[in-house]
Amino acid sequence: MNQLKLDLRKFTKDRNWEQFHSPKNLAMALSVEVAELVEIFQWMTEEQSREFNLDYWDDLMDEIGDVQIYLTMIADYFNLCPIECAKAKLEKNKIKYPVEGNKFS
Amino acid sequence: MNQLKLDLRKFTKDRNWEQFHSPKNLAMALSVEVAELVEIFQWMTEEQSREFNLDYWDDLMDEIGDVQIYLTMIADYFNLCPIECAKAKLEKNKIKYPVEGNKFS
Amino acid sequence: MNQLKLDLRKFTKDRNWEQFHSPKNLAMALSVEVAELVEIFQWMTEEQSREFNLDYWDDLMDEIGDVQIYLTMIADYFNLCPIECAKAKLEKNKIKYPVEGNKFS
Amino acid sequence: MNQLKLDLRKFTKDRNWEQFHSPKNLAMALSVEVAELVEIFQWMTEEQSREFNLDYWDDLMDEIGDVQIYLTMIADYFNLCPIECAKAKLEKNKIKYPVEGNKFS
Repeated sequence: MNQLKLDLRKFTKDRNWEQFHSPKNLAMALSVEVAELVEIFQWMTEEQSREFNLDYWDDLMDEIGDVQIYLTMIADYFNLCPIECAKAKLEKNKIKYPVEGNKFS
Repeated sequence: MNQLKLDLRKFTKDRNWEQFHSPKNLAMALSVEVAELVEIFQWMTEEQSREFNLDYWDDLMDEIGDVQIYLTMIADYFNLCPIECAKAKLEKNKIKYPVEGNKFS
Repeated sequence: MNQLKLDLRKFTKDRNWEQFHSPKNLAMALSVEVAELVEIFQWMTEEQSREFNLDYWDDLMDEIGDVQIYLTMIADYFNLCPIECAKAKLEKNKIKYPVEGNKFS
Repeated sequence: MNQLKLDLRKFTKDRNWEQFHSPKNLAMALSVEVAELVEIFQWMTEEQSREFNLDYWDDLMDEIGDVQIYLTMIADYFNLCPIECAKAKLEKNKIKYPVEGNKFS
């Protein structure tokens, strides 16, 4: 993750793109990339989406990569690590959705 | 990242939620979480979004965390690491958008 | 539709909100409202989403309304009618996806 | 709007696509189309998005049309009219955000 952050900073700086990378714009771009991931699965049944499918494997990796790239840039803008945010959120979720009394467990 | 993957697998398994976590559903949930991140910035100017603002700091961390959680679960479903996908995509982007000839650099 | 446009213009003007309603911001807000519609269906099976369900009926009407509101405001900003745009796009789709040779028809 | 509904029903039926058009899938497709509209504006400043721009005019009409198409299909699935939903929601908004005491009016 730290290496990715550094690589993204350099990539952006080399192209002089910081001017476009306001958190507002990065959030918009993130939503566009997520839609490209959603697009892969939109007409599949859940069952079909669960199966490995070589037809969209390259697209899948590209879109997951793009989402991670923009998420990392937004987080890094605010000096946050998305992995650390995820861990902290997961701890909250454990309390919000306890195993005991969960209707499916 | 590896620890996050393991923690998410356990969290899901403990609640018996694998039945809901088809890639199709996870992609939908990801898009919903991203929209909650977008919502923070939607009425701000770009300038305002660039400023540190304590008012939404907790929300920001939570939403970044949620996006990372769902992205990690989709990637892990297919035995992919989102950081590795991001690095691979960044390499492609370097070729697609060379520094030389870039109109802003 | 024309009445809706006029009502939305008045609603916005009365509150002096034109300053926030750039097409960029309206598109962001539209994506947030769509996510609230997606959220209703995200953990349902397709089968469940096909059934009438009183539990979310009010939410469904509200979210469809919100999406139509923002879509109309974006279109109206550019003096377009979304219904006319839909009709024109449908004509294109008829050519792009002919009935003859369609694999499901 | 009524004509659009009828045309969309016929378009779908002729291609035998009802099987794919669960509300869940239509909501996903709607979110993908909205992202294509967002994409037009993502790197623009708000100022730039406010200007008429012939470069993306055709795309803009197409994407507004696509969003209206999917929104209409979701609404029609539940025998709702999106325009009526919008009018009802606007009435709620008038109460929620009164002109008196609004900080911008």
